Amino acid sequence: MLGEIIENVRKNKPLVHNITNYVTVNDVANVLLACGGSPIMSDEPEDVEDITSICGGLNINIGTLNQSSIKAMYIAGKRANELKHIVLLDPVGAGASALRTNTALGLMEKISFTTIRGNISEIKTLASGSGTTKGVDADVADEVTEESLDSAVRFVKELSDKTGSVIAITGAIDLVADKEKCYVIRNGRGEMGRITGTGCQLSGMLTAFQVANPDRLLEAAAAAVCTMGLAGEIGFKYMMDTDGNSTYRNRIIDAIYNMDGETLNKGAKFEIR
Amino acid sequence: MLGEIIENVRKNKPLVHNITNYVTVNDVANVLLACGGSPIMSDEPEDVEDITSICGGLNINIGTLNQSSIKAMYIAGKRANELKHIVLLDPVGAGASALRTNTALGLMEKISFTTIRGNISEIKTLASGSGTTKGVDADVADEVTEESLDSAVRFVKELSDKTGSVIAITGAIDLVADKEKCYVIRNGRGEMGRITGTGCQLSGMLTAFQVANPDRLLEAAAAAVCTMGLAGEIGFKYMMDTDGNSTYRNRIIDAIYNMDGETLNKGAKFEIR
Amino acid sequence: MLGEIIENVRKNKPLVHNITNYVTVNDVANVLLACGGSPIMSDEPEDVEDITSICGGLNINIGTLNQSSIKAMYIAGKRANELKHIVLLDPVGAGASALRTNTALGLMEKISFTTIRGNISEIKTLASGSGTTKGVDADVADEVTEESLDSAVRFVKELSDKTGSVIAITGAIDLVADKEKCYVIRNGRGEMGRITGTGCQLSGMLTAFQVANPDRLLEAAAAAVCTMGLAGEIGFKYMMDTDGNSTYRNRIIDAIYNMDGETLNKGAKFEIR
Repeated sequence: MLGEIIENVRKNKPLVHNITNYVTVNDVANVLLACGGSPIMSDEPEDVEDITSICGGLNINIGTLNQSSIKAMYIAGKRANELKHIVLLDPVGAGASALRTNTALGLMEKISFTTIRGNISEIKTLASGSGTTKGVDADVADEVTEESLDSAVRFVKELSDKTGSVIAITGAIDLVADKEKCYVIRNGRGEMGRITGTGCQLSGMLTAFQVANPDRLLEAAAAAVCTMGLAGEIGFKYMMDTDGNSTYRNRIIDAIYNMDGETLNKGAKFEIR
Repeated sequence: MLGEIIENVRKNKPLVHNITNYVTVNDVANVLLACGGSPIMSDEPEDVEDITSICGGLNINIGTLNQSSIKAMYIAGKRANELKHIVLLDPVGAGASALRTNTALGLMEKISFTTIRGNISEIKTLASGSGTTKGVDADVADEVTEESLDSAVRFVKELSDKTGSVIAITGAIDLVADKEKCYVIRNGRGEMGRITGTGCQLSGMLTAFQVANPDRLLEAAAAAVCTMGLAGEIGFKYMMDTDGNSTYRNRIIDAIYNMDGETLNKGAKFEIR
Repeated sequence: MLGEIIENVRKNKPLVHNITNYVTVNDVANVLLACGGSPIMSDEPEDVEDITSICGGLNINIGTLNQSSIKAMYIAGKRANELKHIVLLDPVGAGASALRTNTALGLMEKISFTTIRGNISEIKTLASGSGTTKGVDADVADEVTEESLDSAVRFVKELSDKTGSVIAITGAIDLVADKEKCYVIRNGRGEMGRITGTGCQLSGMLTAFQVANPDRLLEAAAAAVCTMGLAGEIGFKYMMDTDGNSTYRNRIIDAIYNMDGETLNKGAKFEIR
């Protein structure tokens, strides 16, 4: 049951090292604290080896990458791999610029990622890229809908097989898969797309969920995705007519803060394919 | 009517590239989403050409400039000019340090700005600077008040004439002018000055308003300034005694999220000189 | 009385230069505005000398340090010392990485800090470090509790004597000391630890409190610590069952915004040892 997964996060208080963008970093930190984890941020090449060593997981997000932070990503990722830590890649904007695409692909070549989480467009970019992901058929629709679901599930399983990573594609319908099993998740609300950084927040939280549940990596990823979506549903219930995306942002983080295993078990909407 | 302007933003969903400070960047992103636009942030010189190319507008804010982001500002600005995108300059702190003043003036020499938005002190610094703005009479009061209004209106029109940019000076009374026409805007509340970044938020939103209304650049700028001020008035109505600047920040962004053309038309307080 | 201290902040509107981390910088800015101060952020080596010169205080926080910002810390600190400004060090993560520890100790060697504020673990790292702090007995418990209080008070006074700085150790019990006098403060709530950056916020606010009260540096530091803790208590009173750490963050900043001298005098819980 997914409920146990979040209870384990609250028990184990996993420490997560984040190399993440400066746009949504504060929300990532507060979401990690909300779910029961603990955040550390560092993107200085000379600092990251020490910092990642004292953590249980590493969340790499390329949202506002720069030459220095890219170096830090490689150094921290290598060290985290040596220590067999959980390592997540959030390839923000892969496909939107050559630097972002190449950085994401370069990281995938050198670092073994436990999980890669992005939207369908970013993940397709990685799939049709070079290196370890070469050869995956990314000829899948640009949105995961009920109509395109079958081919999207095939695609995400195949990509997981090629990369060895859990793949999480988030959108109106979320897919979380390893090579054999795909969680099709229908939590969340469209209004979440009007808040900056719900994806970044999820990546941070997902890392914490996996650190606290090392023997159930796929379920942990699915539990994090369900938690985020369900928090979006719960937070929305308390919205008043004059509220907007700024209040909604707060309510979602608050809902994660108050999420327990029972609420998650009851509210998670998923099927396994 | 200004109401149409914001309706166009919601229809067109303009994508805005922001090279902005890390203090208020999250609020800038959420305000862009609130008004119907879409934000991308990138300040890495190697990344910005690609990113700005897929956008409709570029918002350059020098609030926490550094050597690398300054390079990115020149590169992105040049590319945005080539593509005839909307480009805005927010010269945060011009006059407070040589680097900020020189960067703002240097950018004005090399890049053609659709709009320059700042407070009176920053804009006066640019006017009395060197380069393209040389020769503008900046001997105007340090605050735009009813008493100093006539000379301020003359100053802002003349500066627009010299620079070729729409000039927006925000304060207790806001001025938005091209060389012939000046909107004198009396929306807003003094308490907005107790929140960090309402100016930065406005610059992001103003860029989106112009991208979505390319044939009415001056009106679009005025509409953005009215929207920000009116949101400050609406947000304040819902403040309780125990609320302060943090809640006020949320309420302003929420009010922008809920702003429609009718509300803006009714609430905008301006005269044209 | 501590109440006068905050009233002086509201009267004098101290301008504080912050070289701080990008995780909590927005909250630091809003807390400075909430308490009556005014924030400027700059971490570019070429910019900081000018910026710090127009301020009354400098808040150095090493939370997301990088090679460039470290340079800026030395340059700004040196200039602030020449101008006899208030200078505060927040050694975030000292002890967690060699770079952080060495940067904090290096800064302490070259710059005279009015105040050093951190948690017990960070402060112990500095005390047992090299340079000016060498020789201080850091053999104190890892948490300040009623049991370990006597030795912690001795430790913090001795460290203040060696460094010449006011030392503020924050935790369940807060200690604020010079070499002769230690405020033992029991404001605050444990839930504040579930919000990112309450420590960073306090460091910014503490700097402003000292700038506005240059003749009462120790009391000013104690007043800032009491204000933060009391705001945590007041903010918590308004929390509803569905609220969490994101709303709590807003309520604490709001409570600082509404804090007056009388409220602080009534609510401050401290003894002097």
